[in-house]
Amino acid sequence: MAAKTSTNGTHHSLPEYIPNRIPDPHYVRILDTTLRDGEQAPGAAMTSDQKLQIARQLAKLGVDVIEGGFPSASQEDFNAVKMIAQEVGNNCDADGYVPVIAALCRCNERDITRAWEALKYAKRPRLMPFIAVSPIHMEYKLNKTKEEVLQIATDMIKFARGLGCTDIQFCSEDAARSDREFLYQILEEVIKAGATTLGIGDTVGITMPFEIRELVAGIKANVPGAENVIISIHCHNDLGHATANTIEAARAGAMQLEVTINGIGERAGNASLEEVVMALKCRGDHVLGGLYTGINTRHLLKTSKMVEEFSGMYLQPHKAVVGDNAFLHESGVHQAGLLKHRGTYEILSPEDIGHEKSNGVNMVLGKLSGRQALKSRLKELGYELRDEEVESVFRNFKAIAEKKKRVTDVDLKALVSDQASHAEPIWKLGGLQVTCGTMGSSTATIKLVTSDGSTHVACSVGVGPVDSAYKAINLIVKETVKVLEYSPSTVTGGTDAIATTRVVIRRENKQSPTPALNGNVIYPTFSGTGEGVDIVTSSVEAYITALNKMLDSKE
Amino acid sequence: MAAKTSTNGTHHSLPEYIPNRIPDPHYVRILDTTLRDGEQAPGAAMTSDQKLQIARQLAKLGVDVIEGGFPSASQEDFNAVKMIAQEVGNNCDADGYVPVIAALCRCNERDITRAWEALKYAKRPRLMPFIAVSPIHMEYKLNKTKEEVLQIATDMIKFARGLGCTDIQFCSEDAARSDREFLYQILEEVIKAGATTLGIGDTVGITMPFEIRELVAGIKANVPGAENVIISIHCHNDLGHATANTIEAARAGAMQLEVTINGIGERAGNASLEEVVMALKCRGDHVLGGLYTGINTRHLLKTSKMVEEFSGMYLQPHKAVVGDNAFLHESGVHQAGLLKHRGTYEILSPEDIGHEKSNGVNMVLGKLSGRQALKSRLKELGYELRDEEVESVFRNFKAIAEKKKRVTDVDLKALVSDQASHAEPIWKLGGLQVTCGTMGSSTATIKLVTSDGSTHVACSVGVGPVDSAYKAINLIVKETVKVLEYSPSTVTGGTDAIATTRVVIRRENKQSPTPALNGNVIYPTFSGTGEGVDIVTSSVEAYITALNKMLDSKE
Repeated sequence: MAAKTSTNGTHHSLPEYIPNRIPDPHYVRILDTTLRDGEQAPGAAMTSDQKLQIARQLAKLGVDVIEGGFPSASQEDFNAVKMIAQEVGNNCDADGYVPVIAALCRCNERDITRAWEALKYAKRPRLMPFIAVSPIHMEYKLNKTKEEVLQIATDMIKFARGLGCTDIQFCSEDAARSDREFLYQILEEVIKAGATTLGIGDTVGITMPFEIRELVAGIKANVPGAENVIISIHCHNDLGHATANTIEAARAGAMQLEVTINGIGERAGNASLEEVVMALKCRGDHVLGGLYTGINTRHLLKTSKMVEEFSGMYLQPHKAVVGDNAFLHESGVHQAGLLKHRGTYEILSPEDIGHEKSNGVNMVLGKLSGRQALKSRLKELGYELRDEEVESVFRNFKAIAEKKKRVTDVDLKALVSDQASHAEPIWKLGGLQVTCGTMGSSTATIKLVTSDGSTHVACSVGVGPVDSAYKAINLIVKETVKVLEYSPSTVTGGTDAIATTRVVIRRENKQSPTPALNGNVIYPTFSGTGEGVDIVTSSVEAYITALNKMLDSKE
Repeated sequence: MAAKTSTNGTHHSLPEYIPNRIPDPHYVRILDTTLRDGEQAPGAAMTSDQKLQIARQLAKLGVDVIEGGFPSASQEDFNAVKMIAQEVGNNCDADGYVPVIAALCRCNERDITRAWEALKYAKRPRLMPFIAVSPIHMEYKLNKTKEEVLQIATDMIKFARGLGCTDIQFCSEDAARSDREFLYQILEEVIKAGATTLGIGDTVGITMPFEIRELVAGIKANVPGAENVIISIHCHNDLGHATANTIEAARAGAMQLEVTINGIGERAGNASLEEVVMALKCRGDHVLGGLYTGINTRHLLKTSKMVEEFSGMYLQPHKAVVGDNAFLHESGVHQAGLLKHRGTYEILSPEDIGHEKSNGVNMVLGKLSGRQALKSRLKELGYELRDEEVESVFRNFKAIAEKKKRVTDVDLKALVSDQASHAEPIWKLGGLQVTCGTMGSSTATIKLVTSDGSTHVACSVGVGPVDSAYKAINLIVKETVKVLEYSPSTVTGGTDAIATTRVVIRRENKQSPTPALNGNVIYPTFSGTGEGVDIVTSSVEAYITALNKMLDSKE
């Protein structure tokens, strides 16, 4: 018995692994198919090495079964499954946990043999022969009768048993659209032939939760022997129902759930591991009859990021659980509520999925945010301002928020520095001439005028027009400046429209940094914006504005 | 009675609009809150003009109720709601359809008055006063007792009635976590006070489908007067259940569904309009008791793209219904099945949501694809190749597929051209020299080289360096080009970092536009990207790439 902290927060002993039954009736197995069905997402192909890294991470997460691939699809897929079986499939942890390594194969001897060749190195290998069981698939794709499909399935389960495999998941493709009497019949026969898990596929993602419930309940009630095997559910998200269907199947008695990290997969993807697991964690004890998984949710965020990077399947900001916005709050009403009690708008804790511990709530500052939220964020950043100072920063903040979708911490720091400076600009742009292109280095000549009217001219080369102009300015003002951010705006409607350029800078290595209240070091930063039809000139104006603020703050 | 083609494909007469009841028991109203709850997504702030454009599009889509904003949040929000009420809220179509325009307001006289000031111009204005009804919200956020909340709610519904508004939706925030006896009581009282719709919020996205069912059924069974008003459901997606919960609520008798385009909203967002509507379209007649909506689904894709662009909330490729991959198939098994019968793996038709009609199935070519899929796609692109030619393209295709996640049509065209040994871009950059600054007009000299090696030089002045360079290029290529979008990327870390510039163009007034099947006019657009440390040079490279695509497409 392996001891782990599982999804519902209490310290469970993980039930012993037996292919066809789970000693604890509340424990739900998680089969992750990121490396097989996930990789089938258009454009998501991964290398063997990336797959091995993901498999290691899935083991850290505590996934019960890792479906590593489809060995007969290509030599590379075979190699990936073999590597995973050899390494991850043998790496027992201190609690005795080691994931089952599984592989998909069509119902033919060649595929099954090939899959077994790759899998057999694992401590717990599982073969997953599949065949379609719906009328439309049998008629058009397989061109076979029900009787033929039934015969092939039972023969191939026996063949897999004959290879020495004792952990066999029969996968019924498109089961959701099957004729139920035929489905019950084929499942009964494969159990007799030696299958230990029954995979039930909603391959096209058409099912509603109450239908999934009936499907699973129907199998339990009508398939002799179903009580001696595990029912597993495999849902797709074409109608946005994959997560709900998976949870509903678990309620109905499917004790293995097939999911992918980030919900990637063919078309609209599969049920998301993180959504299914967090729903069980959040509601398992309350309304889902005590169901729980063995997943260590604190590894979710890292796993999600790894899969996002390797598969190239980037997530939308509002992806549930692991999206960038999943724990962010913007409206004034919500922010005010959160500052009083996090439970008002937060049902999951960001730390539970692996976010770093944060002092406050996760609020985004934008045009809907109020003074309290601004003040609270400034305090977190280490600024303790007087009310009239907050008021001044707030006015400038609102002006920026009207133009910019999201006011970042870099912006806020610049705003605080900005409100401290009031003086006349020290330097004004007197003139600018820049040459650039492919025929040589960019060259900029700049004329700056001081407040007393004296004129300074300098020139510099650089790697581009903006770089050379900034360098020429630095020669005149004699400061070492670091450009933190340079943001030209996107222009809709042509190159002669007015563009705004914004730049954020700080002085480099000259002034000792201000120590903040929270112990972090604050480097004062300064921002400037420039506007115009010439992107180079507006970039220079932005820089001079920021420089003037920086020079003013020294005095 | 307005006649429209509605989601289940048959030609229904849309039921007459009466605030508190729907003459057809199978018709489900869609309330779109993209402009209010959607805009609350962190970073999704939109301008008044963008909101007006989206509202126009929502009316084309046939949304029953457009929640236009929260007028007391800011002057801009007020203006947006007023503009929408004045224009979209008065624009009856030939069938007599005009959307209800609604606005959110807190339960106080100032908010309600302000919302009414903005709404009253609409033909069918609806006030949406909201107040939290859960113990945690009442105690920590409102700091009020149940009795106080009950009193405020009924007083404010009466106040709204007193302003002359006869269409009032009472919104119970966090109703899913409310004490049910209190919820029934407050709903009974607001009905007596004059509310015509009861908004039921799963504000924190914690509910499971069977709980939503109990919630709605409980209200119907226990709230006297509930039979004379509309029950509306508002679900969030924190546990990935928003779409399923919304459909389940409709099954239980909630005849108005609150959704957003693309599912955008606070944190993990709201239920997605396109998922809810397509689930009803796909399953309404079969298993959802004949429920249908008035949505014209062929406008879904365009609406989704508009909201994605304006809100900056980009979608993941596997977003259900409207994601780039939603109708794409990659694995060899699926592609083989599809080529025999589309129904094997496709339950929705891409054309139903507004994709252009395609001859074949939507398959992505990648490393898992076989010869049949390649040959089929080449045929769709108009290439009829001999077997040995296909074989040659297939070899090069596999080589590219190993390196590149997704082989696009552009890649395929290039591959075919390669094996027929022509191609090469039409124009290449031979040299560029640009002068700009404050001392005069920008001047650009450009050298372009054609594939046969001949050189063309031109110069032009312009309002900035990019503008002058593009104009010089136009002098050589002799095309009238419209720049639709010019997007330099933001650079973190200084002006010598590598920046990417992207430009989107179309040919102006030369070619007659392609009329699409849905009657809209399609202007072919072309994009190019350039990369480098010099923002002017990379902008020019992006433009030349886009131009070459445009010129190539002519042939």
